[in-house]
Amino acid sequence: MNVQAPIAAPLDVRDQFPAIAGWHYLDSAVSAQKPQAVIDAITNAYARDYASVHRGVYQRSADMTLAYEAARARAGRFIGGAAEEVVFTRGATEAINLVASMLPQEGRNRVLLSALEHHSNIVPWQLAGYAIDVVPLTADGRIDLDAAEAMVSEQHRVVAFAHVSNVLGSILDAKRAAEIAHSRGALLLLDGCQAAPRVAIDVAASGTDFYTYSGHKLYGPTGIGVLWGRKALLDAMPPWQGGGAMIDQVTFERTTFMPPPQRFEAGTPHIVGGIGLAAAIDWVEGIGVDRIHAHETALVAECREALRGLGFVRLFGPEDSAGIVSFEVVDVHPHDVGTILDDEGVAIRAGHHCAQPLMQLLGVPATCRASFAAHSDSQDIEALVAGLQKVKRIFG
Amino acid sequence: MNVQAPIAAPLDVRDQFPAIAGWHYLDSAVSAQKPQAVIDAITNAYARDYASVHRGVYQRSADMTLAYEAARARAGRFIGGAAEEVVFTRGATEAINLVASMLPQEGRNRVLLSALEHHSNIVPWQLAGYAIDVVPLTADGRIDLDAAEAMVSEQHRVVAFAHVSNVLGSILDAKRAAEIAHSRGALLLLDGCQAAPRVAIDVAASGTDFYTYSGHKLYGPTGIGVLWGRKALLDAMPPWQGGGAMIDQVTFERTTFMPPPQRFEAGTPHIVGGIGLAAAIDWVEGIGVDRIHAHETALVAECREALRGLGFVRLFGPEDSAGIVSFEVVDVHPHDVGTILDDEGVAIRAGHHCAQPLMQLLGVPATCRASFAAHSDSQDIEALVAGLQKVKRIFG
Repeated sequence: MNVQAPIAAPLDVRDQFPAIAGWHYLDSAVSAQKPQAVIDAITNAYARDYASVHRGVYQRSADMTLAYEAARARAGRFIGGAAEEVVFTRGATEAINLVASMLPQEGRNRVLLSALEHHSNIVPWQLAGYAIDVVPLTADGRIDLDAAEAMVSEQHRVVAFAHVSNVLGSILDAKRAAEIAHSRGALLLLDGCQAAPRVAIDVAASGTDFYTYSGHKLYGPTGIGVLWGRKALLDAMPPWQGGGAMIDQVTFERTTFMPPPQRFEAGTPHIVGGIGLAAAIDWVEGIGVDRIHAHETALVAECREALRGLGFVRLFGPEDSAGIVSFEVVDVHPHDVGTILDDEGVAIRAGHHCAQPLMQLLGVPATCRASFAAHSDSQDIEALVAGLQKVKRIFG
Repeated sequence: MNVQAPIAAPLDVRDQFPAIAGWHYLDSAVSAQKPQAVIDAITNAYARDYASVHRGVYQRSADMTLAYEAARARAGRFIGGAAEEVVFTRGATEAINLVASMLPQEGRNRVLLSALEHHSNIVPWQLAGYAIDVVPLTADGRIDLDAAEAMVSEQHRVVAFAHVSNVLGSILDAKRAAEIAHSRGALLLLDGCQAAPRVAIDVAASGTDFYTYSGHKLYGPTGIGVLWGRKALLDAMPPWQGGGAMIDQVTFERTTFMPPPQRFEAGTPHIVGGIGLAAAIDWVEGIGVDRIHAHETALVAECREALRGLGFVRLFGPEDSAGIVSFEVVDVHPHDVGTILDDEGVAIRAGHHCAQPLMQLLGVPATCRASFAAHSDSQDIEALVAGLQKVKRIFG
């Protein structure tokens, strides 16, 4: 291997991840592995502290309620928002569905998306009856904000973009995106699934209106996600699902509802999901998002340089991708690449990455994708390169 | 204490519940504590086996997919249903919302509920625009099926009842309820949240059309629930939320969808929730639902007899309640009762139990509720009785 790029300074956290011992896990963009601190928080919540929230008169339930509501505040503060603006959802997908379904359209029935969006930021708008306009990409795979500026109109209720592309790793200029949306009275929703674990976020400074991210991609548990929305916008949205905890008074004739965020959280919440997410955020902030970002950016540079050096790999996306490298091995199907790499102890993703329109644009049925996390290191890249050399020997 | 009722044969599982050591937890109806086997399954899923499902070409992801789909089959078989008829939801509340929102009304805009329903089986129907008719209760707190038979009409699309009342513990005759619903071409949905941990269920034998239950009340993790529906009914329902995993082909112009159950599961699922739920079902079946039912029924008899013997307690619900005893201490507010009991190491629920219409019917703002689980025993009842005697001393 002949790598010219700077070697990423390791964060020395690999041994905190019990599930990747002896394994090169390069699929963190689909779901992150969990550090021991998060696993312990989940275990303790079930084995020591467990009680339901919001409704108990006994101390254990009051304590759990405090912990759960502290998790809400934590999930808001992590992106520069307030607790009362945080709705816990099953995941980012549900968060976008909630906005698409419940935001009053106010006479604007179009949404402005980009060509690199994940299905979770396309299909909810279709199901909610919005007409879709699609911002093209720049040559190196960013959302073309000049084009967006020319396209946005007073017919657009929402401009909804990925903050970081799950396929290309390209990072959006969130502040400029907000300015563009607001220039025509539209709102900006950011799909932050890939950004939350990788780049610092400040919804207030960027002028974002809705922000969504998922727990399991942020080193946290499955089944929990965050919808952050500006308070006035949440206030204007009617109830989403009905049930316990979101109501004020129920009769068979008429029901009144709690204010947000409770209005959007029917039923017993994913209590331990909230606790685990807070532990994950604590873990990430204990290292520092900026350090993780620098680490992953260095790994991307190292990886792209190494793959380029192989001579039989086509790279997608910008050079400064945030922790995600999509590629194809010329004349080999991505699934075959993934299968051979698996034999070599390297896990990558091979597929359409829930972004079929982008695959069409790239002219491929699928890509290979290596994605990094705080625990990733140069040995992972060396193993990837060695595995790709084996792919070439087999298919070459 | 002078208890005449038979002493319940202990199931000897109390030491499997690490979170209740030294504590009389009588609030299992709001959420069950977790046996070590379930906690271990969750911990292992994160610390040893973790990967996302459905989309990975590597072995770990394929293994996790098998485990997750085995959990689906397990969740179906537990109630006599097939894997392909099981939709994993955030909880039972979401399950009822899904049916209320997505079931084609086919010209029938009324739903027949009962006076004892939980808010989660009232508000979703209101939000979905159904008109509600309410079946009264018998004198001892059961859904009056004779009245239901007289009330059901061809205007009712759904008859939706609690299988076991979360306040009174009364058990529905599911088979007769199905016959009544079907006699006018209506469908039967059962809210099985309290039934799943307490009574044997067979959706096929009873002729039920939709069945819902939640994981966290069944000794399982938070954030996971089950909607079981007859295949033909699920097939006729359009997509619920849009996103990854539920689509077939996505373009910005047109999207096609997977068949059920995937059609209703947008986004990365609560993978570890499914794994943990399967472990909980294994644990319950390892003991036997019938044994748990007999155990809790005996505890109810013992508890009611003991409370009746105090002379200052009013009991609600039928004598053969399934593991749930609602009561009031005469002239003492339930919240005060709950607070004093907490000081004595006894956790009960005090409140409206998300059943405000039933509270109105009972003529109380709230009740006290003691609810049992497999780990409950006579010592819990003794502690409850001693605590209530202290309540009487303080407020007497």
